[in-house]
Amino acid sequence: MASVSSEFERLGSETAWEGKIASVRVDRFRHEDGEEVEREIVSLHGAVAVVAHDDECIYLVRQPREPIGVPDLLELPAGKLDQEGEDALETGKRELAEEIGKAAEHWEHLQTYWSSPGFSDEEVHVYLATGLSDAEGETDEDERIDIEAWPLERLDELIEQCADGKSLVGLLELRRRL
Amino acid sequence: MASVSSEFERLGSETAWEGKIASVRVDRFRHEDGEEVEREIVSLHGAVAVVAHDDECIYLVRQPREPIGVPDLLELPAGKLDQEGEDALETGKRELAEEIGKAAEHWEHLQTYWSSPGFSDEEVHVYLATGLSDAEGETDEDERIDIEAWPLERLDELIEQCADGKSLVGLLELRRRL
Repeated sequence: MASVSSEFERLGSETAWEGKIASVRVDRFRHEDGEEVEREIVSLHGAVAVVAHDDECIYLVRQPREPIGVPDLLELPAGKLDQEGEDALETGKRELAEEIGKAAEHWEHLQTYWSSPGFSDEEVHVYLATGLSDAEGETDEDERIDIEAWPLERLDELIEQCADGKSLVGLLELRRRL
Repeated sequence: MASVSSEFERLGSETAWEGKIASVRVDRFRHEDGEEVEREIVSLHGAVAVVAHDDECIYLVRQPREPIGVPDLLELPAGKLDQEGEDALETGKRELAEEIGKAAEHWEHLQTYWSSPGFSDEEVHVYLATGLSDAEGETDEDERIDIEAWPLERLDELIEQCADGKSLVGLLELRRRL
């Protein structure tokens, strides 16, 4: 607690690794007081998650998440902002159709946050989608996804079982507004 | 939506990059139906965040987060699980003392979740700390941190301003329980 939060400037940036969905760079920064720090930064496209519900159910997905060794993690429908020229809301609409086969009449922005700002620039946008109907067109046949319709009246139980960051933010935000 | 969520086994793992706080590996997995997939996985120590409040205030920190270019991000007191042999609750107690100079009589586990299970194994533990008193001993002089005491009665406004994942989960969970 010696020093206050401060402005900083980036002195340099070095790409340490480049993958298909993520890359790592090591950047050097100088703070106002002259101190220089190095930061490992995992860079990614942002992501969008959608809280979609009607009077009875919240629509969720279960899918394998290999990085954490879980075969059926329960999550909000979501996807990466990886389509050129597509904004966050459009991505949310596309993912809702592809993952659970629904369109929504009403869209509301709930939150935008950084998932882990200490080491990553990943930003997550969370929307509320209501006025649901069956979406026209194709769902994405490549995705290994189960749809789960969860009773809205058991929202607290869902929150207690949920272990995915973006889904917790969305469901807890829904809970705050109900 | 062609296939259901499924068990999988890891076929191989290759370290792509090793840094000081993070490393990246590229793993191959085989699903039950025979399909093989490759995943880029950012591996980190887990983290702990603490919702600490008394009758009047929630105690937060502001600090520079270079990866996202923000000089004064508002967050819960938090830290990495990077001390050998220290469990999540002990880390929470240490960080509360180091970052805001407080000890707490009552500790309650609020949530444990994965911050971004699509690409990272980072797990975050969130605790509620009440019955606060001034902590004995030293705060961490190296940390570039401002303490901010936020009125508990303005919790909704805090949630609306907050843009940090772990802090949103903790504050929204507090809101659900109040």
